[in-house]
Amino acid sequence: MPKQFARLVDAEQSTFQATARRVAEPGLFARPTVIAAAESRFIVAEQLVQAGLSADIILEPQGRDSAAAVAVAALHSARTDPRAIVLIMAADHVIGDADAFRRAVAAAAEGARAGYTMTLGIEPTRPATDYGYIRRGSALSEAEGGAGGACTVERFVEKPDAAGAERLIAEGALWNSGYFLFRADVMIAELEAFVPDVLAGARAALQAATTDLDFVRLDADAFGQVPKISIDYAVMERTARAGVLPVSFAWSDVGTWDAVWGVLERDAQGNALRGRVELIGTRNSLVHSEGEGLTTVVGLEDVVVVTTPDAVLVASKAQSGRVKDLVSVLREKAHPEADAHRRMYRPWGWYQRIDIGERFQVKRIMVTPGGRLSLQKHFHRAEHWVVVKGTAEVTVDERVVLVHENEAVYLPIGSMHRLTNPGKIPLELIEVQVGSYTGEDDIIRVEDIYGR
Amino acid sequence: MPKQFARLVDAEQSTFQATARRVAEPGLFARPTVIAAAESRFIVAEQLVQAGLSADIILEPQGRDSAAAVAVAALHSARTDPRAIVLIMAADHVIGDADAFRRAVAAAAEGARAGYTMTLGIEPTRPATDYGYIRRGSALSEAEGGAGGACTVERFVEKPDAAGAERLIAEGALWNSGYFLFRADVMIAELEAFVPDVLAGARAALQAATTDLDFVRLDADAFGQVPKISIDYAVMERTARAGVLPVSFAWSDVGTWDAVWGVLERDAQGNALRGRVELIGTRNSLVHSEGEGLTTVVGLEDVVVVTTPDAVLVASKAQSGRVKDLVSVLREKAHPEADAHRRMYRPWGWYQRIDIGERFQVKRIMVTPGGRLSLQKHFHRAEHWVVVKGTAEVTVDERVVLVHENEAVYLPIGSMHRLTNPGKIPLELIEVQVGSYTGEDDIIRVEDIYGR
Repeated sequence: MPKQFARLVDAEQSTFQATARRVAEPGLFARPTVIAAAESRFIVAEQLVQAGLSADIILEPQGRDSAAAVAVAALHSARTDPRAIVLIMAADHVIGDADAFRRAVAAAAEGARAGYTMTLGIEPTRPATDYGYIRRGSALSEAEGGAGGACTVERFVEKPDAAGAERLIAEGALWNSGYFLFRADVMIAELEAFVPDVLAGARAALQAATTDLDFVRLDADAFGQVPKISIDYAVMERTARAGVLPVSFAWSDVGTWDAVWGVLERDAQGNALRGRVELIGTRNSLVHSEGEGLTTVVGLEDVVVVTTPDAVLVASKAQSGRVKDLVSVLREKAHPEADAHRRMYRPWGWYQRIDIGERFQVKRIMVTPGGRLSLQKHFHRAEHWVVVKGTAEVTVDERVVLVHENEAVYLPIGSMHRLTNPGKIPLELIEVQVGSYTGEDDIIRVEDIYGR
Repeated sequence: MPKQFARLVDAEQSTFQATARRVAEPGLFARPTVIAAAESRFIVAEQLVQAGLSADIILEPQGRDSAAAVAVAALHSARTDPRAIVLIMAADHVIGDADAFRRAVAAAAEGARAGYTMTLGIEPTRPATDYGYIRRGSALSEAEGGAGGACTVERFVEKPDAAGAERLIAEGALWNSGYFLFRADVMIAELEAFVPDVLAGARAALQAATTDLDFVRLDADAFGQVPKISIDYAVMERTARAGVLPVSFAWSDVGTWDAVWGVLERDAQGNALRGRVELIGTRNSLVHSEGEGLTTVVGLEDVVVVTTPDAVLVASKAQSGRVKDLVSVLREKAHPEADAHRRMYRPWGWYQRIDIGERFQVKRIMVTPGGRLSLQKHFHRAEHWVVVKGTAEVTVDERVVLVHENEAVYLPIGSMHRLTNPGKIPLELIEVQVGSYTGEDDIIRVEDIYGR
């Protein structure tokens, strides 16, 4: 699962949810826009609902790097107000103090209003070699927000080595947070000047976009033409009007498990713990146990242990950057865990497998109120559904029945069936599949309200 | 789960099964006797059936240390033949070469026949500090098996420190394997001489034993009186007639995960792997993944990672002896994983929980052919049973029905019900419990063929 949707840092919410909540202050921020990969659409929608938030959701048919996404954001915002101030945030960063963040955004907005493309520059707390740096230029004028400490950017510096990081810090350089703040019309003009192909492609993709349920789906052909380039290379490193506001709140891009450990609360032994965990003689470690299982660690230091019902990761904290290599290995070897998650999100809710045997499979299925699975049939399996929460409306061939909590229904092999949640609370049921083959691909969809 | 019943070393069998198989050679060995804790009786029986073996099974109502068990073994064997040669084996040791083991037993039997209590002394391969040692005395005569290298025991030495171990090895001392071989009448006489209370208690417990299904259950009152003392202290260190046969096959008491690693096959990086596992930059480690899940390790050395559907253990190999402390901590904190296993063995088969929610629980239940659960009812839950393999005979109040694969039956709250496997193959079913409380203790047993 992409890390922005996981509850890595906060047991109550994902970093995506925390990011959306951070700007849920109507006095300061308008309704946000989420730009997301098309395949993440259901989890984006589900997590916004969980968090009690709403947003415009724009779907990228494929990733075209950050300049394309910024272009879409600027164009989309300009439709409402060409001079709208746009704040770009990654969904997977952690910020310690949301109030300080909002004050910083309000301060940086003055520079943006004056025509600068502003970034937030984090005061370094260690000579990090995994972040880019920003060297400050001269102070902005008072009218441009200079009173708050905002300056021009003298230069963006790529990730340095350790000695370089020490030197940059001595020179007063800041970490590049990747947060940007600009006027829509200013960014559109910058893109026009530096990367007109990106702007044109984004505009075409947005103009030809289709609406699918609550999602705006960018046109795949047009968006596929947009050159892949980061907003840093495309605009920030070239523009004469880049500004930076130094800020000192706790921030991390949580790019590695080591960084996650760094932002978590830790006990006297330096351990950051989550879930059912017991340690003996273990220090400076992150142990994160999801689900019902117990995770134990004996006599280790500086390790990361993450257990979920799908998979277990045990890593040296210092080498946790190599998890990327691990994912490549898993893909090469076709381990489903590289990309699939035990709980599979669908437009109507989710399902997860809870058991499997030679001629059977058991799933737990959740259908959101109003959710409706496709009308379908299977050639190789019968299904037994036992409702454990809520009420199901079940179509079996010509018959439609309501199935309540603690009631069951049987779907013979080959029967045409459909599951709907007509109620006001989530529907949960246990599905027992019995048959010679229980693969996901034994499904004939006859009709589907989600157009699958 | 006690480690002798786990498939730690061999994916196909437990060390208990391997131990039983090692003596399944009718030309050399009689039908074996298993002396086991009463609570392990069903898994002992199940694992013997799985291995295609049969044995007398004698149950200890409580552990009274090894002298008591040896006394029971000697008395039980003497009933058939007072001069029977008895071989005592722990069920949790690993031996590399079963043929070499059997040859050694045949050779040591000569000494036993001549009246010695023989042990197998392992030629040390490292200066171990976690084993006891045996200093050899003079060679036995040819008639006593001395031709095979058997000697008298000069002295048993407790676990030494590192320097002591080096010295002992230089002196030609052997590891004490804890395997004993004696004539039943000789051991009975030795026990009579050194620890008459142990012998008397064991004799009384065996005389008053009851038969329960296929088990011989030692009398709890009598056995509870037997002093707790090891056979080493009780007899071996005192007798004038202790002998030792030096042997050189690979042997381990697999007392720690480090020792398990030591006896497993390892790849070029020194890793011993089992199940679905992927490693990056990891060496000299043991990674053991049970069940469906994937276990990954990045950038570590000398660690032990054991994952099961219940729990995960990550330990420094050097400190894997502290797992004992961990178990104490788990007990103190009342973690069920300290003693309970996800798959719970019962006289009729087993069950395991596969999912649990606020008002429901799902189990997979296996009933062996002929198995019969108690006649029972619940106050707080209804149950849905879906048969996924075999045939069930289900009693619900006054009704008895046969339920076949892909059929379901409903047991309302408060109904009196019973589940039986009348067939020739194992019965498997999925049980969905729905109700306000799904704890194991909501059960009224009206009748039970297993006397529970």
